[in-house]
Amino acid sequence: MAEYERMLDANEEWARDFPGALPVAPARKVAVVACMDSRMPLFPLLGLAVGDAHVIRNAGGVVTDDTIRSLTISQHLLGTREIVLVHHTDCGLQKTDDASFADLVEEATGARPPWPAQAFTDVDEDVRESIRKLRASPFLLSKDVCGTVYDVTTGRLHRVEAD
Amino acid sequence: MAEYERMLDANEEWARDFPGALPVAPARKVAVVACMDSRMPLFPLLGLAVGDAHVIRNAGGVVTDDTIRSLTISQHLLGTREIVLVHHTDCGLQKTDDASFADLVEEATGARPPWPAQAFTDVDEDVRESIRKLRASPFLLSKDVCGTVYDVTTGRLHRVEAD
Repeated sequence: MAEYERMLDANEEWARDFPGALPVAPARKVAVVACMDSRMPLFPLLGLAVGDAHVIRNAGGVVTDDTIRSLTISQHLLGTREIVLVHHTDCGLQKTDDASFADLVEEATGARPPWPAQAFTDVDEDVRESIRKLRASPFLLSKDVCGTVYDVTTGRLHRVEAD
Repeated sequence: MAEYERMLDANEEWARDFPGALPVAPARKVAVVACMDSRMPLFPLLGLAVGDAHVIRNAGGVVTDDTIRSLTISQHLLGTREIVLVHHTDCGLQKTDDASFADLVEEATGARPPWPAQAFTDVDEDVRESIRKLRASPFLLSKDVCGTVYDVTTGRLHRVEAD
């Protein structure tokens, strides 16, 4: 059975006890920006209820044009005003660098990515870099940002202060 | 109390019963690409366990350069081979259009976004467009994609077939 079939089956269970519709605007007016890592189920990890917060995720949890697009929509159309960043230890992006990754993709596919992988070495510094990028954006209504790092061996977040 | 403080407190609870470390590569070799909507807790909604799948989320769950970056890393570095798309009914991006949204942001901030909001009208067609964009990417190792739409009033997914 393909994975999507298992997910559609599991969704039948979810829908059986479904409590009903909620408003489109997040109740706690917060947007989380996190890494795509499979070990971070953000709702229980952050104590979020369904309907509480927008959840934006990509490789690294980094701030790209697409992150800014999502946050701009979140703030201007749907009323969020706080941003919480969740990077983590043992990230796949700490195990490569941008040039090596482009080489790897080019060798496997024949096509070299025009975008950087956004590899990094120091996870706390990567959080600070994300905060700097958010603060430099002219499109956001609020730059009230809290940066954190999740330790995948303990389940614990620590806060990273901005520069 | 700021929302991030409530989240850090909730994380103490999560860490108390933390079962321990898992591998960085997703166990089920799948990457989910979904909208940031606050009403979709993807782990229970899709029957995912911690460690099962990458989760990539943005406004709309659309395929942008950053989505492709994340999926390319997911497949080349971390071994995923299936992609599951989750768009949904009652999306914020169905309540605007790209020009109106750019006007709104420009009026509020003085800066006009150079990127489109990626507004849409027909959610099934938006899923098909995402599948087309994935299939057109030269960087992916696998284009095994299942498109779905989540109904926020019933909790149920329906599958959207590609063209």
